[in-house]
Amino acid sequence: MFNFTHHNPTKLIFGKGTIPKLAGEIPSDACILLTYGQGSIKQNGVYDQVMQALAGRTVLEYGGIEPNPQYDTLMPAVELARREKVDFLLAVGGGSVVDGTKFIAASIPFEGDPWDIVAKRAPLQSAVPIGVVLTLPGTGSEMNMWSVISRDSARAKLPFGSPLVYPRFSILDPETTYSLPWRQTANGIVDTFTHVMEQYATYPADAPLQDRMAEAILLTLIEEAPKVLENPHHYAARANLMWCATVALNETIGVGVPQDWSTHAIGHELTALYGIDHARTLAIVLPAVLDFKREPKRAKLLQYAERVWGIREGDENARIDEAIERTRGFFEGLGLPTRLSAYGLGRECFSEVASLFAQHNPNPVGEHEDITAEHIPAILERSL
Amino acid sequence: MFNFTHHNPTKLIFGKGTIPKLAGEIPSDACILLTYGQGSIKQNGVYDQVMQALAGRTVLEYGGIEPNPQYDTLMPAVELARREKVDFLLAVGGGSVVDGTKFIAASIPFEGDPWDIVAKRAPLQSAVPIGVVLTLPGTGSEMNMWSVISRDSARAKLPFGSPLVYPRFSILDPETTYSLPWRQTANGIVDTFTHVMEQYATYPADAPLQDRMAEAILLTLIEEAPKVLENPHHYAARANLMWCATVALNETIGVGVPQDWSTHAIGHELTALYGIDHARTLAIVLPAVLDFKREPKRAKLLQYAERVWGIREGDENARIDEAIERTRGFFEGLGLPTRLSAYGLGRECFSEVASLFAQHNPNPVGEHEDITAEHIPAILERSL
Repeated sequence: MFNFTHHNPTKLIFGKGTIPKLAGEIPSDACILLTYGQGSIKQNGVYDQVMQALAGRTVLEYGGIEPNPQYDTLMPAVELARREKVDFLLAVGGGSVVDGTKFIAASIPFEGDPWDIVAKRAPLQSAVPIGVVLTLPGTGSEMNMWSVISRDSARAKLPFGSPLVYPRFSILDPETTYSLPWRQTANGIVDTFTHVMEQYATYPADAPLQDRMAEAILLTLIEEAPKVLENPHHYAARANLMWCATVALNETIGVGVPQDWSTHAIGHELTALYGIDHARTLAIVLPAVLDFKREPKRAKLLQYAERVWGIREGDENARIDEAIERTRGFFEGLGLPTRLSAYGLGRECFSEVASLFAQHNPNPVGEHEDITAEHIPAILERSL
Repeated sequence: MFNFTHHNPTKLIFGKGTIPKLAGEIPSDACILLTYGQGSIKQNGVYDQVMQALAGRTVLEYGGIEPNPQYDTLMPAVELARREKVDFLLAVGGGSVVDGTKFIAASIPFEGDPWDIVAKRAPLQSAVPIGVVLTLPGTGSEMNMWSVISRDSARAKLPFGSPLVYPRFSILDPETTYSLPWRQTANGIVDTFTHVMEQYATYPADAPLQDRMAEAILLTLIEEAPKVLENPHHYAARANLMWCATVALNETIGVGVPQDWSTHAIGHELTALYGIDHARTLAIVLPAVLDFKREPKRAKLLQYAERVWGIREGDENARIDEAIERTRGFFEGLGLPTRLSAYGLGRECFSEVASLFAQHNPNPVGEHEDITAEHIPAILERSL
């Protein structure tokens, strides 16, 4: 096990009927900016629950934060917050709203061009405190310090992270996810699955507890997903998927082990270039990366095959092949294509993806830091 | 899954050579009281590492905190800290030192008789901040808000908990555990194992992730323990046991599920009455409780049998019997007797244990809140 530091100060409030607890978590004299997305919270009752909990408080609103939240969408919120002296941000929505709100929180007190926060990883001195009411699980942003921001005009989708943007609290009521379209539910499941794989499918590091906890999440996702597909109002399954998404990226399974974020790095370019949903890019890239890196990942892929998919027969390569096929099958079964061809893309996209990847990743990625732009064609070839 | 709140603000610093990081975690102008136990830290080099990290700081010392830390031992430290205006407590040792230091931290600003903190669960208004350098894993106290304090003159061993006594940081260097006597290592493993079982072996609550994460800890303990028995300097195994102990009781596996702390409650009385090591009382009581409550725990015991011990053959009762026997075998293999007779105790102790239990547990215990003093003989009978 590698040395590590674990410090996650977010307060998680989980369960049905918990939105009213909002009132006790935000200072009563705060000037609150409520941020949200495309407006589904005004249809599904969440907005009303939030406003009821905050009755009598000073609450401004800023809606319209889109999937892959855009710098150009977020900056007006920064200006509004500065002008109105907002001192608490309340993100109500999914990972994109939370990520966007983290950027707003960091930008409000930032001196200089806020784009530098992502483009140059400019260090932060402070951030406005954030609370979250999560309505779409998947990114794990509700209990971590990470955020991914897009800027179409720069063809960029880039992450930043700072301990200053851990949410002070996050409220997770699984019932708020009942009305999600299946596409968003399924995307969240694949995003969660991939977060686990990027912390797990690397090389053995004498960390059996982290391994087994990672497998625990994968097995639970595989078990619970069909229940929600069959019955979107299945409370227990909704709750389990929601909790899996949080635990997948809250420093539980990733401490002290090597990590490989190459699937996310490549996937971000597919979103930036072709507008493919984040999770759908992962469904394409993950199986390809696992196959491309099967030698350095061999031991863990065999463990994955056996413990997650119960594959014990056949020679090593056959077992790995089958595990990768089962992974594709799981994603496809949820409705996420795992081939570029499903999006009308072929080999002609390779150089464009590689070029943008090179621009955004000056250093090699992967657990051995050995994946560069030149490997992109060989990886994507496997998911044509 | 039940509703829950999870909020664990402790900063964990884990790994070899991490003690020097102390310096950055304690305010430089703090008046520090270093608390420790029976002096092993002065033999194994930990004390020297700590003092080197704190060179130039104001550091007072208070040693002699014993296993099952005693109220009468801790109160002079409270007086010393009040007199010298100590504003940071640094616990260097195992769970008893940490638990004792939590009591000191709570008592310093407490108005009234500090014994009320445990005896009457008196609410706390504040506590002095605590840091930890852990040298003996097992209790999990390094990353939770719980503490157990004894007072022999009152024949009492009682817990208290408050968010105010979460350690601000805990430093876990597995190398500090190399020199532990096997008895202490083994006790820590059984304590950890029992912490998991008290959050796991209850009834199914639609919480498959928590279940699998609990099983992950149990399987890892079973796998790693023999490595340390064979080679006390096995870094990876020492690290894994240390991390298991923390995760077993830091709100990872226990959120949203029923819990049964009856084994601890009964075990505390065996310690209070006969001075048996804490973990050794658990080794006696846990198998007895599992057997006594096999009907309400049936589904989880069958899951435990299959997933932890690989028991798939035989009828249900035979599988449960075997799982309990394997549990006893694991404890006995580590050197912990699982029978009262090993301590010269027989049926004559039942009424004394029951009487003290009744005094300390005005309400029934167990996940169904149905275990009372009258059940003590039937439970202990199973571990004669």
